[in-house]
Amino acid sequence: MRDVKKRVLTGITTTGTPHLGNYVGAIRPAIEASQDPNVQSFYFLADFHALIKCQDPARVQASRLEIAATWLALGLDTDNAIFYRQSDILEIPELMWMLSCVCAKGLMNRAHAYKAAVAENEEAGDQDPDKGVTMGLFGYPVLMAADILMFNANKVPVGRDQIQHIEMARDIAGRFNHMFKGQYFVQPEAVVDEKVEVLKGLDGRKMSKSYNNTIPLFSSEKKLQKLVRKIKTNSLEPGEPKDPDSCTLFQIFSAFASNEEVTAMREQYAAGIGWGDAKNQVFDYLNAQLSAPRERYNALMEDPAHIEAVLQKGAERAREEAAVTMDRLRSAVGLGRFA
Amino acid sequence: MRDVKKRVLTGITTTGTPHLGNYVGAIRPAIEASQDPNVQSFYFLADFHALIKCQDPARVQASRLEIAATWLALGLDTDNAIFYRQSDILEIPELMWMLSCVCAKGLMNRAHAYKAAVAENEEAGDQDPDKGVTMGLFGYPVLMAADILMFNANKVPVGRDQIQHIEMARDIAGRFNHMFKGQYFVQPEAVVDEKVEVLKGLDGRKMSKSYNNTIPLFSSEKKLQKLVRKIKTNSLEPGEPKDPDSCTLFQIFSAFASNEEVTAMREQYAAGIGWGDAKNQVFDYLNAQLSAPRERYNALMEDPAHIEAVLQKGAERAREEAAVTMDRLRSAVGLGRFA
Repeated sequence: MRDVKKRVLTGITTTGTPHLGNYVGAIRPAIEASQDPNVQSFYFLADFHALIKCQDPARVQASRLEIAATWLALGLDTDNAIFYRQSDILEIPELMWMLSCVCAKGLMNRAHAYKAAVAENEEAGDQDPDKGVTMGLFGYPVLMAADILMFNANKVPVGRDQIQHIEMARDIAGRFNHMFKGQYFVQPEAVVDEKVEVLKGLDGRKMSKSYNNTIPLFSSEKKLQKLVRKIKTNSLEPGEPKDPDSCTLFQIFSAFASNEEVTAMREQYAAGIGWGDAKNQVFDYLNAQLSAPRERYNALMEDPAHIEAVLQKGAERAREEAAVTMDRLRSAVGLGRFA
Repeated sequence: MRDVKKRVLTGITTTGTPHLGNYVGAIRPAIEASQDPNVQSFYFLADFHALIKCQDPARVQASRLEIAATWLALGLDTDNAIFYRQSDILEIPELMWMLSCVCAKGLMNRAHAYKAAVAENEEAGDQDPDKGVTMGLFGYPVLMAADILMFNANKVPVGRDQIQHIEMARDIAGRFNHMFKGQYFVQPEAVVDEKVEVLKGLDGRKMSKSYNNTIPLFSSEKKLQKLVRKIKTNSLEPGEPKDPDSCTLFQIFSAFASNEEVTAMREQYAAGIGWGDAKNQVFDYLNAQLSAPRERYNALMEDPAHIEAVLQKGAERAREEAAVTMDRLRSAVGLGRFA
């Protein structure tokens, strides 16, 4: 019998290098959530998804390693959570195909990412509305449905822009259940954390790889110092009171510090702390918090064989789950073994 | 090093029960071709493809078994040819995903099967041109490309209606090679056998499941007799000369008989053989030819475990091939192992 724990599933697309924004907005809450004994967490490196947007193999490969090392360095409990690489579970594309055969093309026509691509082509006056759209981009909500439905995830923490994908997974699950007359899949629910912290980047916009304004989580000490010093501030002089609530530096500090420490910093802003001084304090603070996991991260990056072994262990557990599900589904659609 | 034999790949969609038309048009030439020592043949039960059109699991399951038993009963040399079930090779949907990420959606917009479905909806005055079109139907040329490219097939024997799919596979292969800077795939060639015999069915139209006019290859003796008697003939009386060249019965006989036997039958037609007599002769002839393989077929159908074992052996060989290819491809796109 399957356990009755709630199942929570989170995928991380492997195209970037984890930065402070990823950590605060996604990694930290996920690692905390994974420690809940009432929850069975699934975390996976969504490397099939990475292929949609990234045709740079070295980048995909590096990102997968960096992300795995990051999660492990930060203490993900891989005995409790199931931590795996999507591309190690070939049952996932298999399930994607099964779901494709019940999923209306019309559903994908209405997907936000696809519609945005078409709108962009139309604005640019392109003859072909599908210019630059691959079958990967067009069909990836079906892959996401397979990711989720494979493990009968109850909850999928997502950003607002991803809610539609969960609805699509529900739609596809319902259609499959109906067509093959059984309760094969549970209906997953999107969990949108409204309180999720969106960290600002060097230039004050949302910290994001696409804005090139990130602070990599495990920058070297020197690099971290340099980047903190680059955070955009205003031209107020030392001694002039400063507004913490509009200040990127203050926001970044707050995402790491305790309430007391935040209050103390707020007082320093009011008292007119100089930017250089503030930056030094924030750097020292971040560096103190990050130096231990950074050391673990660097050690892990030197030992890819260990990371591989951890992921293989996770893949085995994931495949055990997938095997049970797929056995049932293969029989359901007529692809069971003969004996 | 890979062998340098030409590689020929043939898939059989598993939704129907093999009939005389399948045998004459496809199975017999394929089995003959598989005996060529200069060729490495791949034959597979295309059961992933079956899911596109058939949501009747019992039908898909039965068809898979019947088709496998048919090929084995007819003497397919599974030591020489690689005979496998598509759904046993999970690397195939994996490769489909990789190819999806380089395949333009626009290519699929132009696929005949999809365009026919849209045209049908438009003729019916449907608001939604994609009504009834699943992602399976829309994307299956990419699955076909994966079927072919996985084994670097040089030649793919197809009907005229399938030429476009081979062209698409070539296009996708070329794009992948270009994008990832290597000769990962050979360009497959469609082989259209212009001499392929299209057998007529009971009503004189092409023998086809969709016309419900077939003679199952391994009908029981009694059933075979009944069906041969049902073959449509004209109202000429015994003693009146008959035209063999417009006669379905004669065509079916000719597909099985030797040149001498065909000539002899032609003379009987000229001499005014009666239809009842002709049908008896054709039945006797077919029955004599089919009774030995029919016996083997029935024995195989009673022993699904044996068929399963043969297919598992084929799957192992196919996966050995697939493993080498996928290892290379995974590294190419950035999904290689870390150690």
